[in-house]
Amino acid sequence: MHFASDNTSPAHPAILEAMAEANSGRSAAYGADALTRRAEAALRDLFEAPEARVYLVAAGTAANAILLSSLAKPWETVFAARTAHIEEDECGAVPFMTGGGTITLVDGRDGKIDADALGQAMGALGGRDVHGHAPGPVSLTQATEKGTLYRPDELAEIATRTKGAGVPLHMDGARFANGVAALDVSPADLTWRAGVDAISFGGTKNGCVGLEAMVIFDPELAPDIERHRMRSGHLLSKQRYLAAQLLAYLEEGLWLDLARQANQSAAHLAKGLSGKNELRLLYPAEANILFFDAPRGLHRRLFAAGAEYHLWSGPLDGGPEDDWLTARLVCDWSIDKGDIDRFLDLL
Amino acid sequence: MHFASDNTSPAHPAILEAMAEANSGRSAAYGADALTRRAEAALRDLFEAPEARVYLVAAGTAANAILLSSLAKPWETVFAARTAHIEEDECGAVPFMTGGGTITLVDGRDGKIDADALGQAMGALGGRDVHGHAPGPVSLTQATEKGTLYRPDELAEIATRTKGAGVPLHMDGARFANGVAALDVSPADLTWRAGVDAISFGGTKNGCVGLEAMVIFDPELAPDIERHRMRSGHLLSKQRYLAAQLLAYLEEGLWLDLARQANQSAAHLAKGLSGKNELRLLYPAEANILFFDAPRGLHRRLFAAGAEYHLWSGPLDGGPEDDWLTARLVCDWSIDKGDIDRFLDLL
Amino acid sequence: MHFASDNTSPAHPAILEAMAEANSGRSAAYGADALTRRAEAALRDLFEAPEARVYLVAAGTAANAILLSSLAKPWETVFAARTAHIEEDECGAVPFMTGGGTITLVDGRDGKIDADALGQAMGALGGRDVHGHAPGPVSLTQATEKGTLYRPDELAEIATRTKGAGVPLHMDGARFANGVAALDVSPADLTWRAGVDAISFGGTKNGCVGLEAMVIFDPELAPDIERHRMRSGHLLSKQRYLAAQLLAYLEEGLWLDLARQANQSAAHLAKGLSGKNELRLLYPAEANILFFDAPRGLHRRLFAAGAEYHLWSGPLDGGPEDDWLTARLVCDWSIDKGDIDRFLDLL
Amino acid sequence: MHFASDNTSPAHPAILEAMAEANSGRSAAYGADALTRRAEAALRDLFEAPEARVYLVAAGTAANAILLSSLAKPWETVFAARTAHIEEDECGAVPFMTGGGTITLVDGRDGKIDADALGQAMGALGGRDVHGHAPGPVSLTQATEKGTLYRPDELAEIATRTKGAGVPLHMDGARFANGVAALDVSPADLTWRAGVDAISFGGTKNGCVGLEAMVIFDPELAPDIERHRMRSGHLLSKQRYLAAQLLAYLEEGLWLDLARQANQSAAHLAKGLSGKNELRLLYPAEANILFFDAPRGLHRRLFAAGAEYHLWSGPLDGGPEDDWLTARLVCDWSIDKGDIDRFLDLL
Repeated sequence: MHFASDNTSPAHPAILEAMAEANSGRSAAYGADALTRRAEAALRDLFEAPEARVYLVAAGTAANAILLSSLAKPWETVFAARTAHIEEDECGAVPFMTGGGTITLVDGRDGKIDADALGQAMGALGGRDVHGHAPGPVSLTQATEKGTLYRPDELAEIATRTKGAGVPLHMDGARFANGVAALDVSPADLTWRAGVDAISFGGTKNGCVGLEAMVIFDPELAPDIERHRMRSGHLLSKQRYLAAQLLAYLEEGLWLDLARQANQSAAHLAKGLSGKNELRLLYPAEANILFFDAPRGLHRRLFAAGAEYHLWSGPLDGGPEDDWLTARLVCDWSIDKGDIDRFLDLL
Repeated sequence: MHFASDNTSPAHPAILEAMAEANSGRSAAYGADALTRRAEAALRDLFEAPEARVYLVAAGTAANAILLSSLAKPWETVFAARTAHIEEDECGAVPFMTGGGTITLVDGRDGKIDADALGQAMGALGGRDVHGHAPGPVSLTQATEKGTLYRPDELAEIATRTKGAGVPLHMDGARFANGVAALDVSPADLTWRAGVDAISFGGTKNGCVGLEAMVIFDPELAPDIERHRMRSGHLLSKQRYLAAQLLAYLEEGLWLDLARQANQSAAHLAKGLSGKNELRLLYPAEANILFFDAPRGLHRRLFAAGAEYHLWSGPLDGGPEDDWLTARLVCDWSIDKGDIDRFLDLL
Repeated sequence: MHFASDNTSPAHPAILEAMAEANSGRSAAYGADALTRRAEAALRDLFEAPEARVYLVAAGTAANAILLSSLAKPWETVFAARTAHIEEDECGAVPFMTGGGTITLVDGRDGKIDADALGQAMGALGGRDVHGHAPGPVSLTQATEKGTLYRPDELAEIATRTKGAGVPLHMDGARFANGVAALDVSPADLTWRAGVDAISFGGTKNGCVGLEAMVIFDPELAPDIERHRMRSGHLLSKQRYLAAQLLAYLEEGLWLDLARQANQSAAHLAKGLSGKNELRLLYPAEANILFFDAPRGLHRRLFAAGAEYHLWSGPLDGGPEDDWLTARLVCDWSIDKGDIDRFLDLL
Repeated sequence: MHFASDNTSPAHPAILEAMAEANSGRSAAYGADALTRRAEAALRDLFEAPEARVYLVAAGTAANAILLSSLAKPWETVFAARTAHIEEDECGAVPFMTGGGTITLVDGRDGKIDADALGQAMGALGGRDVHGHAPGPVSLTQATEKGTLYRPDELAEIATRTKGAGVPLHMDGARFANGVAALDVSPADLTWRAGVDAISFGGTKNGCVGLEAMVIFDPELAPDIERHRMRSGHLLSKQRYLAAQLLAYLEEGLWLDLARQANQSAAHLAKGLSGKNELRLLYPAEANILFFDAPRGLHRRLFAAGAEYHLWSGPLDGGPEDDWLTARLVCDWSIDKGDIDRFLDLL
């Protein structure tokens, strides 16, 4: 009963097979290899974006920080949700790698940025001239850290604000696959057609060994991205193994199959939980993550029975049994369906 | 009727006289001069802090950013009020000069940090380990950007939190003089005796040409501050002219006399405004700044009559006459009392 | 006839098999997994350094920059050879990731730092106080970029200087295996017993997919290294695949076998070249790299026949046939012995 | 007999008088004042450069670092002489404030950059693509740290290299006045007409309290300079006192008069020294600085008699009397002619 994180899953076997297949003969270093060319092309095809630029790295924090460093000037502020990964989970990688940029936290519901709150946050910078932060990219997360999704029209509403302010719109797509699978729209519809300028397209949490692709739809937006990747140590010398992962990940829709499995597991779990009186689901479980509140006593019982997940508030031990604590459950492609049923049976 | 900023005032003549007096003969460069030694000693005396270390710079943003860079590690977050000068008015100097540090905005009333909100903000970092920001210094402003003051017991309450978290407490004292003058307590009582570890002791806004002193009460807290000052270009070669300002500023309590004048002007202004129905004072006018809301039409009338001040919301022109807009009035030592009465007569 | 770079080789099959084996079941994320613990222990054993701290990353530039950021303060200068990888091939990663540190280039022969030249460079900083760079870590490369090696006594001589100056000694060991294999001394003798404080222990160029280990022999030297790794995006969520590589790399001495093969190939090549009148070997070919000078015409003939390698000076085309150009040949574990003979036959 | 530094001189009385005159009435803050406008215009006139942009700061290190941060990208390397102030005396301000830029040291004679050596240094970066540093601005010093001068044709020769490489040419003009005074050419001839794109125009070492002007001849070269100045804390709120200094400094050629006095003192000193057998002048004494070698015993005698200057090599005490040590003598406008004669009489 492992619901702690989609980072704890193994890679899908096809990914490792592709890496092994790529492992023969010589190959140009630092991304000048043929496999990298093919992988870039495959991703451009997926996004129906023949002009897009694609860059591969091994980690999601790297993808976000390099992209935002390339899109923002050091005195700009990135707008993001309070719960954004770049704010809460990346140890200040964005301020560091942008050279002193900041993150302005924007209110919203269910882990999302609210378009009006964004407009207000942007407006609040106005009139301060060189003394204030300059407005920089907006970075939203799809699926959000709360397991919810932006629909294309919600993205478009935010994009209206970014276009109005003349700043780029970035999507942290560590769980983009879960979004596409759940909404059943095309990758293009969920990105550039809705106004997204660049995406960190994630693979690691959804069956890869370690692979994230930075995609910039307008090739003029981030002219220095290769310098940013290199000077932060993220240009891998043997990039063919990243390219091999990406090709296998996209082949015959594996990426969507895996995301669909994860989403279905979460939906099954959410359905099972929704009928229970002793707990309360917190957000619409639209992707592969769900949150619920329950009394400490219940959590203790679940942990004792072998369930693994993160508590978002308070410690498991040391407080009253009837204090309510927030929990997060994550389902990935490899989750054992039997585990879900065992978990639900415990309740 | 100039109420725009205390940065628009001239320096007190005694300050320039002291600079002229210092202008004879040779003097060791880069702060190794005798006048600097005397100025440091004078400030240590003022603070009753014989162990304190004192460093001079010419600008307030420099003082804050150098001090906080010296007190914080690059992955730490500085806690500050939403309206703090370091957040709103320094173009990201703290994130830049700390090497990527961040600022966590803390709620509170009247421009202050609320101790409980601070505790919550600190607590929210917990449990994230290397992924989250590490807690860093708390930076509060005295007098605040809203013209209000922290009493010693309020400082002590915040210091309880910083001691508990093992982080230093910094005071942006650009208007510290106004605080001491208004509260009639000793500089020591309003800083280290209440738990403040370091202060940016301001002179520029209160009658100096350009002078801020960084004071660190525990000499072990900021061992690298001289490097931070030097590499950011803030160690002046002819530092005697900063020292001369500081000595004149402290001599016979000039600094407090000037602050008292400014505070009295603001109090007179506030008293005059408080009886008016057509506007609303926003915060207790405890130092030399006050804010009020009034209809656009009234602001237009005041501006037309020659009043100068900043509108904090909305433009003067282009909206309905009866929209209420927020205004800030600042009184400095040089303000013309007649101007205040003329301004009040306009209402 | 591929002698361009050891970055173009495939990984050894055992490495990919180990990754595939690691690919089952769940595993704690971000390095908290059991495989990482085992890999760290294995490396500590190899170095006979039970107190050492070990951190894994996927790229050599990252290992160097994170280690040096952890060992140096931002105003310190790192001493390195003129031809060091950190100076010539990492796009300023060290200055960037240290927050503005510099690299002082030190003279020496055959790609090495000369101990006396190091002493002079250190001495030249003296007396500048806060105005000059502060002396920071010395970083040497083993094997050097010129394919030469530091003997333990040469390391010890440099370590005398670093101890004298109170600065750490870092080894860029991207090709450390080639050094150990060639000198037939223990990893401990070639590092901490000779005074080395920290090493970037390379795997990528010697048969891994992407693996470098940062090893710090004195655990108190780099207290913040985990923050530096995290904020630069180099803490991989699925670290088990790095750990698996390291374990397979060390198992039954695979790492030394591969390095020995590479060295032998280079020795064979060097021997063959040394008898030729039309070219001139430039440095002792002690590891897996060699350099030679030859007329442009000869290079053109070799390229035309299918040889691949880098010219270190001048372009292949566009100059007189009898201009001498410098070439670099690199042999890795996977080099085809037949290719070497074919190459030699061309001469 | 004070020859230690032109930073130890007082300011010229006219400078302080101008500051006192500026000290009346209100004045817009942060450089929006009328005096700043006038000062900028005066400097544009001086340079015959109506399109130039002018920005004032209080310190030379700030001027250099802000200008170079504005002209260079963070992965670029600045080319400078080995003895450049930005390399030896600014604690890494350029690497810090550019966000990780580097300085490539270029050989040359007498404190100057040699144009051919510059070409070679630029060429050595070629072919490394994203792995190497990108070529950035060339920064030369006029007068040099060795007291020598670049003639317009020497500047033009270097400018040919910078134009060829597409990089800007920066002049550290901390002692620019001494250069103009000595060469008797116009400021324009010694800057933009010779290919210089930007200058740190110094006042502090030549009679000001603390004033440097950054001048950019092509207004499109440094679009973000105001952000760089602000975020590093160098935009002074009461900028009128910088402007007042600049106006007084330029008025009726005061700046050139002061520089001429300094140069004449140095020439008088050099002439006196040149006939002495017991010492050796090291460089042409073209501006206000000279260097000489002499036995330790002689230096000890001079110091004992009250002379003050810096030894550039070795300590005064603790070595053989007949070791030769290098000394630097600096003359500024305020130097006592009698002191020079007394000094010469000692020899």
